[in-house]
Amino acid sequence: MSQGKNKQVIKASIIGITGYTGLETLRLLLAHPHVEIVHLTSRQHENAPIGDVFPHLSHLDLTVSNLDHKTVAKDSDVVFLGLPHKTAQDIVADLHGSVKIIDLSADYRLDDVKTYERYYTGHNHPDLLSEVVYGAPEIVGNDAVAGASTVANPGCFALLGQLMLFPFKGLIESADIVAITGSSGSGKEASEGTHHPVRNHNMKSYNINAHRHIPEITRGAGIEESQLNFVPTSGPFARGIFANAFIKLQADINPLDLAEQAYGEHEFIRLTNSVALANIVGSNYVDLSYVKGENNMIIAQGALDNLVKGASGAAVQNMNLMFGLDPATGLDTLAPVYP
Amino acid sequence: MSQGKNKQVIKASIIGITGYTGLETLRLLLAHPHVEIVHLTSRQHENAPIGDVFPHLSHLDLTVSNLDHKTVAKDSDVVFLGLPHKTAQDIVADLHGSVKIIDLSADYRLDDVKTYERYYTGHNHPDLLSEVVYGAPEIVGNDAVAGASTVANPGCFALLGQLMLFPFKGLIESADIVAITGSSGSGKEASEGTHHPVRNHNMKSYNINAHRHIPEITRGAGIEESQLNFVPTSGPFARGIFANAFIKLQADINPLDLAEQAYGEHEFIRLTNSVALANIVGSNYVDLSYVKGENNMIIAQGALDNLVKGASGAAVQNMNLMFGLDPATGLDTLAPVYP
Amino acid sequence: MSQGKNKQVIKASIIGITGYTGLETLRLLLAHPHVEIVHLTSRQHENAPIGDVFPHLSHLDLTVSNLDHKTVAKDSDVVFLGLPHKTAQDIVADLHGSVKIIDLSADYRLDDVKTYERYYTGHNHPDLLSEVVYGAPEIVGNDAVAGASTVANPGCFALLGQLMLFPFKGLIESADIVAITGSSGSGKEASEGTHHPVRNHNMKSYNINAHRHIPEITRGAGIEESQLNFVPTSGPFARGIFANAFIKLQADINPLDLAEQAYGEHEFIRLTNSVALANIVGSNYVDLSYVKGENNMIIAQGALDNLVKGASGAAVQNMNLMFGLDPATGLDTLAPVYP
Amino acid sequence: MSQGKNKQVIKASIIGITGYTGLETLRLLLAHPHVEIVHLTSRQHENAPIGDVFPHLSHLDLTVSNLDHKTVAKDSDVVFLGLPHKTAQDIVADLHGSVKIIDLSADYRLDDVKTYERYYTGHNHPDLLSEVVYGAPEIVGNDAVAGASTVANPGCFALLGQLMLFPFKGLIESADIVAITGSSGSGKEASEGTHHPVRNHNMKSYNINAHRHIPEITRGAGIEESQLNFVPTSGPFARGIFANAFIKLQADINPLDLAEQAYGEHEFIRLTNSVALANIVGSNYVDLSYVKGENNMIIAQGALDNLVKGASGAAVQNMNLMFGLDPATGLDTLAPVYP
Repeated sequence: MSQGKNKQVIKASIIGITGYTGLETLRLLLAHPHVEIVHLTSRQHENAPIGDVFPHLSHLDLTVSNLDHKTVAKDSDVVFLGLPHKTAQDIVADLHGSVKIIDLSADYRLDDVKTYERYYTGHNHPDLLSEVVYGAPEIVGNDAVAGASTVANPGCFALLGQLMLFPFKGLIESADIVAITGSSGSGKEASEGTHHPVRNHNMKSYNINAHRHIPEITRGAGIEESQLNFVPTSGPFARGIFANAFIKLQADINPLDLAEQAYGEHEFIRLTNSVALANIVGSNYVDLSYVKGENNMIIAQGALDNLVKGASGAAVQNMNLMFGLDPATGLDTLAPVYP
Repeated sequence: MSQGKNKQVIKASIIGITGYTGLETLRLLLAHPHVEIVHLTSRQHENAPIGDVFPHLSHLDLTVSNLDHKTVAKDSDVVFLGLPHKTAQDIVADLHGSVKIIDLSADYRLDDVKTYERYYTGHNHPDLLSEVVYGAPEIVGNDAVAGASTVANPGCFALLGQLMLFPFKGLIESADIVAITGSSGSGKEASEGTHHPVRNHNMKSYNINAHRHIPEITRGAGIEESQLNFVPTSGPFARGIFANAFIKLQADINPLDLAEQAYGEHEFIRLTNSVALANIVGSNYVDLSYVKGENNMIIAQGALDNLVKGASGAAVQNMNLMFGLDPATGLDTLAPVYP
Repeated sequence: MSQGKNKQVIKASIIGITGYTGLETLRLLLAHPHVEIVHLTSRQHENAPIGDVFPHLSHLDLTVSNLDHKTVAKDSDVVFLGLPHKTAQDIVADLHGSVKIIDLSADYRLDDVKTYERYYTGHNHPDLLSEVVYGAPEIVGNDAVAGASTVANPGCFALLGQLMLFPFKGLIESADIVAITGSSGSGKEASEGTHHPVRNHNMKSYNINAHRHIPEITRGAGIEESQLNFVPTSGPFARGIFANAFIKLQADINPLDLAEQAYGEHEFIRLTNSVALANIVGSNYVDLSYVKGENNMIIAQGALDNLVKGASGAAVQNMNLMFGLDPATGLDTLAPVYP
Repeated sequence: MSQGKNKQVIKASIIGITGYTGLETLRLLLAHPHVEIVHLTSRQHENAPIGDVFPHLSHLDLTVSNLDHKTVAKDSDVVFLGLPHKTAQDIVADLHGSVKIIDLSADYRLDDVKTYERYYTGHNHPDLLSEVVYGAPEIVGNDAVAGASTVANPGCFALLGQLMLFPFKGLIESADIVAITGSSGSGKEASEGTHHPVRNHNMKSYNINAHRHIPEITRGAGIEESQLNFVPTSGPFARGIFANAFIKLQADINPLDLAEQAYGEHEFIRLTNSVALANIVGSNYVDLSYVKGENNMIIAQGALDNLVKGASGAAVQNMNLMFGLDPATGLDTLAPVYP
């Protein structure tokens, strides 16, 4: 890969192309001016034309293979992992250091193994947790991501929750969040909760104060779990998360000043006075709104596309940073798909 | 059961309450002024309060049991079978003659066993096919249903297709139908085709000229299968079927005259100049529209609620006829749920 | 109207049939065993068959007229007003005492004229406010409604908000509510906010801490406006309201005990451990769920159908009480339309 | 504009940015590697930051002005007109020859002024009709578009209808089409037909055999209007058109052979055995499927995104041809937004 007079080309592969995050990463990489797709793998498919597996991509001259991850890594500059948690643990450990990795699973998001094991399952490589960088550049800083060899991409609820609270870090007394997600957040496998006849017009809260994304939120916001009520809720739409938060602060501050200070340099955060889910679908933007209530309460709204900024868009943004590109490369040309 | 000065009470049971047709039959029976619910059965549940199985019915003081069908029949005046095809074959054979039966499965809809076996599976009781009455009173006449001991309730696509063509029986050269169904037509089990993230905004045709409801349509319309193209299509809504038909006739006739003649006495058929799915959802009405095109072509639209007139509403209408009630009893008080 | 050995018949009319609340009141009255529809009026229609105005009701032999309200009242035992606020003020004043009135507008919901005028507009009959009974029997008691001549039917958001908070009246330190409404809550006129291409997949909060239903909620819950944050939010579905509330109490109590105590006698309130919008659509039920969080916080969910319990179902329930019937008459036979 | 060693830059402007076709053209141009946006105009907005008019684009540093069309043209290499029909007539006439024009209105789609005036309104510039090229390269050929100064972009229904029939041109006896459109096809203004509470779960046919797109279809397919039945139908989704066609041919042919022959060189046409709306949303692809029925009947399905290939994507494809670029430039990097 040269950065000379010729255009930089990043050889990218996706391990686990059949899930929605793998597919969405491919959609975004296809629009990226510096990326060449090398391998797309899935355990279930051995050298299938991509159009046989995904008819919406039948125009592409690409193949889905079940190549092993080491071969994939050898041919690539960066590998995206679109795998379920637990599955990614060993693959990251195998490849860490030999290729740049962006892991969209939950396996390396938390730095504390006990917290991970409380919310997920046993971890085979606890020592590696501290070497992987959490891929939320607006929280950890662009430089931290730029210097990473392996990045753990944030959870979708987790990223939106953190971004809503982060400007007030150190000032938060308590936070109560209702976050409503589209059905694509449940992944590609059909289930009772995504059965169309009911989901079509349903809303339902679930895993109240027990969702796996909670420790990412509390860490990013600098609060304890006892200071947060987090109510995940399913909504009757396909894409996006729309959240309301009631943020109780320790002092009377102007929330927009702090938000401006936190996010002024981060082009995918848009501060607005009216957050609407339809304004961000298909894009990497996060819209945030803050108004003051009584008694140091901030009432906030936030929205992002769970598959873009909540997953694959953040992953591509992280890739850009890891390869010295402007973080918006290939992403800021993708406007929201409106209406 | 008396028909004296006291109000007639029909003791009704539903065998197979867990599917959508069983559930919808219960919804309609609860609104019926002459029905007492006796048993609700399901293989999976042994004496569960109905609210534990179906939270939307938690206000009801009813139990879901796994009583055997003979015990159910002994306690009942009428038994509704909300079972998958094949499963209903033996149960109908066991109970036929001992209790009035309304079978919502496909097992006794076709009178010709070869046609049944071509579209479905082997049939254990071919001799019984001729004794069961097809429960489409607008096609076979109210009297035929009134005199039945066992009724085979029509398929949802099948009923709408027939009702669109029936007024022209004997005059049809060919018919081409596109029938778009809501996702509840796929039943209660989640599947790839009803996965919300895609179904939410998808349309797709399937089983073109191969759908199991075709022989019901051709029989009702008096045509051969070679005269029909039937294109089932899935739509992004939960309830209802909306169909377009191009009906080529052998002569230049006024379609509304024939439709009026066919359906004038049947109060659930509404002839209109603008069929809209939203006008019938939740109700037992079928809206039909006919306009003349060139060359003896009739362009028709039709709509019904697949779970009501396409299943459980037709079943209750059939029950009314079988018990000497006005066919609309308990049904004409249920207006479409609009919007 | 007799209550002797013959069945009681209530002569009911709807003034303002063209809006969604008028239409839904008609749907429910058609299923009511003791109601005879007398007049349906609208300023825009002079003796039109109802099917010409509302094709989904083309089977009904009813007429929409523009009869004046006094003539309507003279022929009726009860009059439902499905009018915009302000319009209802004088009509209620004209008819109060001469006929039972159930006013679905906002005009007589608030007892304090200053509060009314702050949220709505000038009031021509402030003296009448104290004579009209607020039609939330679960809050004011069945007897209060039973003794009323004129009832002011609650607002949809207002009723759900109150019902969520009411069990804790006197114990509430603060309450933060996010209430998500279906598009039918915006009424029958098309507008930018209900334009399908966007609303189809949008969510958006609006009128934060400024919605007109707030003073009904605070009154019912016994709190000041400064103790409430209320965030109305629009959702991409047609019917229903789903709400989340964070209720901070002054003491450590078991919320279910208090809810059971408040609502044990009220059959349309269902306490559940999993509120889902789809479980109540089309019915008069309100589902409520409460769990305890840290620090005396209660996390609650609630759902109702904005057009039924949030409007016309509550109106029919009030009518039942006003005429000495069981409050559930004609309503408990209408199960949720599921799915 | 140079085509030398530097990258070609096309200065593009959109007159009429506030409608959905103008907005979608902007979305696509933002992703185009050779385009620089020069002016975006609207009569209603005088120098407004684009984010004030369209919050979903608040990240863009662009202005919406009401500059007159001549000034816009002087600064541009190509002008897109996103205007209602009639409005575009004079603007095209004013600018024709002085700048490349892509007119998304209906004003220059038909070459016969009588047909135009029968379906639309009076035409001020009938002489110009023959100088404007119809912008369907798959029908008229890439070269015709490449040589055009002004292009009339096809109608959305019209393009899909033509593309379904075109391979059989000269062999068609009759064609019957049901085309179901998403609500964005109705444009940006709210109306009764796009009111969410009903449209949310409605289907309805309208303008049967009277839709303005019919003469485009018959011209492209080489048939008379008497040979076509065209049934536009509205569906409960935001984007896309899904169509079924029954195409009666004069001979027994293999449809796929003809389709392959017609479209082999055209990369945005994908021949498939299973057309699904969700496979094309957000992209410029058209999926087509053909199966043979009895008696020389072809049963076809087709789908495109009404705002992309049905409007703005076709416009950008035409722009590419007019500027000597590969027709897929900036479009084939935009994969369908799935799910």
